[in-house]
Amino acid sequence: MKNLLENISTPKDLRKLNREQLPQLAKELRAFIIDIVATKEGHLGASLGVVELTIALHYLFDTPNDLLVWDVGHQAYGHKILTGRKEIFHTNRQLGGIAGFPSIKESKFDAFGVGHSSTSISATLGMAIASNLKGEKEKHHIAVIGDASIASGMAFEALNHAGVSNANLLIILNDNAIGIDPSVGALKEYLTKVKTDRKLAAQNNIIKALNFDYSGPIDGHNLPKILSELNRLKSVKGPKFLHVITTKGKGLQQAEEDQVTYHAPGKFDKISGERIKKATNLYTKYQDVFGKTLVELAKKNDKIVGITPAMLTGSSLKFMLEKFPERTFDVGIAEQHAVTLAAGMATQGLIPFCNVYSTFLQRAYDQVIHDVALQNLPVIFCLDRAGLVGEDGATHHGVFDLAYLRCIPNLIVFAPRNEIELRNILYTAQKGLKNPIAIRYPRGTGKILDWQKPFEKIEMGTGVCLQKGTKTAILTVGTIAENIIEALKLVSAKLTFSHYDMRFVKPLDKNLLKQIFATHTSIITVEDGTIKGGFGTAILEFASENNYRHKIKTVGIPDTFVEHGSVSKLQHKIGLDVQSLFNLLRASS
Amino acid sequence: MKNLLENISTPKDLRKLNREQLPQLAKELRAFIIDIVATKEGHLGASLGVVELTIALHYLFDTPNDLLVWDVGHQAYGHKILTGRKEIFHTNRQLGGIAGFPSIKESKFDAFGVGHSSTSISATLGMAIASNLKGEKEKHHIAVIGDASIASGMAFEALNHAGVSNANLLIILNDNAIGIDPSVGALKEYLTKVKTDRKLAAQNNIIKALNFDYSGPIDGHNLPKILSELNRLKSVKGPKFLHVITTKGKGLQQAEEDQVTYHAPGKFDKISGERIKKATNLYTKYQDVFGKTLVELAKKNDKIVGITPAMLTGSSLKFMLEKFPERTFDVGIAEQHAVTLAAGMATQGLIPFCNVYSTFLQRAYDQVIHDVALQNLPVIFCLDRAGLVGEDGATHHGVFDLAYLRCIPNLIVFAPRNEIELRNILYTAQKGLKNPIAIRYPRGTGKILDWQKPFEKIEMGTGVCLQKGTKTAILTVGTIAENIIEALKLVSAKLTFSHYDMRFVKPLDKNLLKQIFATHTSIITVEDGTIKGGFGTAILEFASENNYRHKIKTVGIPDTFVEHGSVSKLQHKIGLDVQSLFNLLRASS
Repeated sequence: MKNLLENISTPKDLRKLNREQLPQLAKELRAFIIDIVATKEGHLGASLGVVELTIALHYLFDTPNDLLVWDVGHQAYGHKILTGRKEIFHTNRQLGGIAGFPSIKESKFDAFGVGHSSTSISATLGMAIASNLKGEKEKHHIAVIGDASIASGMAFEALNHAGVSNANLLIILNDNAIGIDPSVGALKEYLTKVKTDRKLAAQNNIIKALNFDYSGPIDGHNLPKILSELNRLKSVKGPKFLHVITTKGKGLQQAEEDQVTYHAPGKFDKISGERIKKATNLYTKYQDVFGKTLVELAKKNDKIVGITPAMLTGSSLKFMLEKFPERTFDVGIAEQHAVTLAAGMATQGLIPFCNVYSTFLQRAYDQVIHDVALQNLPVIFCLDRAGLVGEDGATHHGVFDLAYLRCIPNLIVFAPRNEIELRNILYTAQKGLKNPIAIRYPRGTGKILDWQKPFEKIEMGTGVCLQKGTKTAILTVGTIAENIIEALKLVSAKLTFSHYDMRFVKPLDKNLLKQIFATHTSIITVEDGTIKGGFGTAILEFASENNYRHKIKTVGIPDTFVEHGSVSKLQHKIGLDVQSLFNLLRASS
Repeated sequence: MKNLLENISTPKDLRKLNREQLPQLAKELRAFIIDIVATKEGHLGASLGVVELTIALHYLFDTPNDLLVWDVGHQAYGHKILTGRKEIFHTNRQLGGIAGFPSIKESKFDAFGVGHSSTSISATLGMAIASNLKGEKEKHHIAVIGDASIASGMAFEALNHAGVSNANLLIILNDNAIGIDPSVGALKEYLTKVKTDRKLAAQNNIIKALNFDYSGPIDGHNLPKILSELNRLKSVKGPKFLHVITTKGKGLQQAEEDQVTYHAPGKFDKISGERIKKATNLYTKYQDVFGKTLVELAKKNDKIVGITPAMLTGSSLKFMLEKFPERTFDVGIAEQHAVTLAAGMATQGLIPFCNVYSTFLQRAYDQVIHDVALQNLPVIFCLDRAGLVGEDGATHHGVFDLAYLRCIPNLIVFAPRNEIELRNILYTAQKGLKNPIAIRYPRGTGKILDWQKPFEKIEMGTGVCLQKGTKTAILTVGTIAENIIEALKLVSAKLTFSHYDMRFVKPLDKNLLKQIFATHTSIITVEDGTIKGGFGTAILEFASENNYRHKIKTVGIPDTFVEHGSVSKLQHKIGLDVQSLFNLLRASS
């Protein structure tokens, strides 16, 4: 049989096919995705699940004139391939290549840039209202959103507004009962019941109660059915809601059976589906240092509870879930709720470890300020994926946290240099902490094999000296210290430089800083967060308060959104890799 | 008849009454609230609406052992009066007096501090889970939340979690169809239908669909009914939901009839209810400068739209609603949605003015970063109530904005010195802006009578010189400039000081700053935002980048939560009033 995908560059080509050819195209598109992701890595399962839906949408609607927004965007590989990016799809998530998520900058077919969850309905409603105001009455506006994402508060806010609007908006619920981990919550249980109980869907329907024209649930892998239903909905005006049931990982047996692993499986055999083992990494991921240490601590301290907004696997809180299911809470994609839930628990003497990716804590900023810090409740925030995260790119880098947390009164802000420091601060934090604390650590592994040493308490607000020199003091927080340690090895004028790991961005170790300023003539700060308002800035403030006039150079993430690519390439690009830092030190020695 | 309230200090006293006496107590409590709020000012309508509910809850439940959380807290005056604060209730919202909202620090009966909306279910669920883990099976956990607050995303997230928990949680929906302005949205329409359609409440019930034991709606002013229903619910385990219908302002005719005005009516006659006119303020509130200017601009530019999350009156976007209802959007208490809706509109060429109080933009921080700034969409954020807001206190001061916005790439951050500057930046922003901009201005009035002058364009990233001196440059942003202008009038060594209004916190006017640093020996920055990471810090960063070694003193809000009280008293307390600034200048001249 002739290969159909070969001749499709854009949806215009797709629309030349007849309907009977579409199932074959679905097969080819699935194979194409598997083929490339097998060797180039990426998010597999979500895109496999919406192959039919993707084809149907671009076949029936006049994209890019009709506007299509994919929530989160994990599922948009098929969309990218059918909209002009087939030939460069193999560059997915690489520096200079296409982004892993839809992006306005990348294609006119990407109506809205995504990455974080649950934004699609708000954005699409805004577009639909704009079309109304501009008199573009025939334009379609479509949001495709998963069942994990629609349970997030922001999506509810948008539904609540859309339901009373006359916007020409089609919301497609891609219901596969899983986000990255299996979906949770009352809405999910409700959706599960609806799937098997047609009467419930017809009578006690949450979506209908919110004023939507609800249809479904329909089989999202049955192309004729999707086409016919979407075609019908094209002529229905106002807010409409189509409930589609799909299988994440559809078409690759292992991906269907192990949906959590095959969300983003790494390299795998495209025929058998077997994952290809990486060269064994001897080191432990920071997330596992957190996850395993928490279990150790929870065994001895029954006040400890663990909370995650939908990142059980990614945060390794799953280890706690295995041992202490009743003390572990996956609240779904609900960062705001996660934080204030933790605050409520803390008022009753529990010790909540609230694990949120750095970039996602932006979702609960007010709750950190208003519910935790203002009441000075000792919630322990564990911010995974801080700093540059690599291939997930601009939407996911955790580079603003030090700046946006540092201005909050009462909050302690700590960044461990290595696994042992992370382990010890977790230990310290659960021993009668009087303030909230944010502990931020990166994606990936450290470099210490035997990190599971006996616990040692860390004094709040103390830094440590790693190397003593005579002229320039290098101050770091967090794991970027490693790059400085390596860079210092290359420097010939070694004795010129001191290196201090300040550890606490807040409170600063003022005694140590006074010693440092008294014994050095210049200061260099290095962090893997934004230079606007971050750690280096805290040192500038300290110097100003204390009337020091030293030369201070702050090194960090520049004031721009950093794109996707491997962490090492990105570090090189912005001057945070070992070589760049070495050059900097050499120039200043 | 004997006065019952006289002998009630705490709920223990209340519980000595028999049920037949409670309606009389309700009358007295209402009169007490009216009596004091009439002269001392405060939030009236919400508390009048829940008098019966407040009495019933403290009568039947074992507070403070049973935990009671009031959402937002506008409605908690009766609660405060019955829980030990009757004698000091007249100090409400004053410096050193009791807070306008429940506060953990103030009373053990205030189980959770509130102020921002929609936190109560999360917090109470956290408490209820804690009780489960501690084996306190008989403890009750009660959240009272209004129909405007429950429509916010965070509340939905909490419902979604609570519905699948076995927590002993009672959620009471105080449904009066109004927040500060009338409630909006699909959920509100649904709740309105439920009130008159018992079958809908029984069959197509959103709350039941989320796994709750739903009862109601019942009349919230009928004490026997409330008591009987609450009593029944005391023995129901797990998550339960009671739908109560109340009238905001109940018991004061004017307050019932004009609920928006009597939310916080200022002084009024306690018998007639008539509001007592303040000595005419000749000046215009900043919110009205915004509201009126926007209408002027919208008349000429049909791409302009206005968005507010539930602050139509408070932001004065109501003026736009009157003239251009189809271009004005009150989305309810939904800050996240408001921001991303604006982003969606901006992608289609509309010019959205998104008006959010400074403190509430904390609720949409991620949306500002991820949906607006990352895509560099020219959304115009108008942040009302920036800086110290006065009597609303710690939960409401808008003092973090400059710090948390300054670290966001692409975003312009501007603070007008006066009405004319606000007017001109609104004009400038709608003329082909290429970036998003945040414009922050305070509560209250300025001092210019004839501010409605012809529009003038403001060059992006430019400051202005207000006074030229020889030694020390004072740099300000925003209306705090007024205090410096006044302080400078008191200084004898006038020629020592220059005063620059930098206007833009980002981008800084680097050319002007270079001139300033070249012609002065020391710098003082003054702002009404946090000194951690704010405007002053931006100047420190500039100095460091450019290798200036001037003495720089940064003045602003200290790194602590500021309590309630009048703005002038608070400014005095933290050294931002004219006299304190004068002392500072004198010491440095």
